[in-house]
Amino acid sequence: MNVLEAIESRRSVKNFDPTHQMPETDVARLIELTKLAPSSFNMQNYRLVLVKDPALRKQVRAVAWDQAQITDASLLFILCADLNAHRKNPGRYWAHAPQPVQDILVPAMGAFYEGHPQLMRDEAMRSTALAGMTLMLAAQGLGYQSGPIVGFDPAAVAELIRLPEDHVISFIVVVGRGTVPAWPRGERLSDAEVVIEDRFA
Amino acid sequence: MNVLEAIESRRSVKNFDPTHQMPETDVARLIELTKLAPSSFNMQNYRLVLVKDPALRKQVRAVAWDQAQITDASLLFILCADLNAHRKNPGRYWAHAPQPVQDILVPAMGAFYEGHPQLMRDEAMRSTALAGMTLMLAAQGLGYQSGPIVGFDPAAVAELIRLPEDHVISFIVVVGRGTVPAWPRGERLSDAEVVIEDRFA
Repeated sequence: MNVLEAIESRRSVKNFDPTHQMPETDVARLIELTKLAPSSFNMQNYRLVLVKDPALRKQVRAVAWDQAQITDASLLFILCADLNAHRKNPGRYWAHAPQPVQDILVPAMGAFYEGHPQLMRDEAMRSTALAGMTLMLAAQGLGYQSGPIVGFDPAAVAELIRLPEDHVISFIVVVGRGTVPAWPRGERLSDAEVVIEDRFA
Repeated sequence: MNVLEAIESRRSVKNFDPTHQMPETDVARLIELTKLAPSSFNMQNYRLVLVKDPALRKQVRAVAWDQAQITDASLLFILCADLNAHRKNPGRYWAHAPQPVQDILVPAMGAFYEGHPQLMRDEAMRSTALAGMTLMLAAQGLGYQSGPIVGFDPAAVAELIRLPEDHVISFIVVVGRGTVPAWPRGERLSDAEVVIEDRFA
C-alpha cells in the first residue's frame, strides 16, 4: 500500500474480530518496522509490552472504561518508555558511528537529559508516539486496522504489568482485523487555525 | 512509495539543499496529510509553526546548536500544541458525530483533561509526535527527506515565535531535498530488551 494512501485510509478502529489470530511472521514484521522509528540520540527509549495472556487482557480492559478492543484486537501493545535510557550503557546507541562522533554524542546525551525530569518524560511521550504512529501505519500496510487508546487508568495498568519505577506508560495501540468501519472522519480544523506562519499573532 | 518501504527508507537527514524551493502544492499536501494523524478525542491540539522568514530561521538556528538543517531545509516546522484545546469550543471536534455520541464524548473530554496538567502536557507531546511521524512519512512518500530535532533551547524558540502562554513546543521537523545520506542506521536494541511479553520481570 502506498504511504500516502496508508495515511489517508488509517482510522482509529474500535471493533475487532476476536477470533482472528495474527501470524507470527506479521507480528515480527510489525515490531521490526516499529523499531525503525526515530528516537532522540537514537536511545530507543520506547518499550512495547505485548499483552498475550487473555486473563491479563481482561484485567486491562476493566481499568480501561471496558473498551472491547482491549480484549478483542489481535494484538495489544502497551507503549511504555524507560525514563533513564540515557543512563543505561548509552555508548551502545552509537556503537555504529565513528569514534569521534561517539565521543561527542554519548556525553552530550547524558548532559541533555540528566537532571531534567520533565524533558525525560516529554521524550518518553514523543518517542512512544513516533513508534506508535509507525506501528499503526505499518499495520495498515500489512492489511490490518489499528487504534490508539489513552482512555485507561495508567496507575492500575502499571501495577498489572509490573512497570519498573523508572519507566512510564504512554498509550496503548491495538492491531487486528477491524469488523466495523470507523465513523466518518471528524472535521479537520482549518489550516488557518493549525498552521501558523513564522510566529503567533 | 509503499508504506513499509517508506518506513524502512526514512532516515533522519541533517544536510539539505538550501537552494531547493518546495512547490506550494507539495507543502499543502504535506499539511493535509499531517492533519490526518489521530489525536485524543479528535481535539487536534497540535499546531504547526511553519517558519518561512529567512531571518527568523537564522535566529532559530542560533539557539539550536547552530544545526545547518534549520536554515537549509526547504521547510521548517516547529511542532507546538495548545495545552487547553479541550476547553476551546470542544463541541466542534465532534460536530460530525451523532448527537448521543457528542453528548457523551464532549463532556468526557473536559473531565479527562481538566485539572491534570501533566496529562495535558503528555497529550501535547504525544499528539505532536503522532503528527510529526505522519509528516515525515508523508514527506518520504512525496520524494523528500526529513529529520526530527529536539536539540534547541525551547524557551528561546518560544520567545522567537511568540508562543502563547497556554501552548508548549514539542520538537522541530525539517523537510527538503537531502544532499548527504544519513550515516548507516544505528544498531537496533534486541527484541529481548524492547518487547516485553505480558509484564515486566
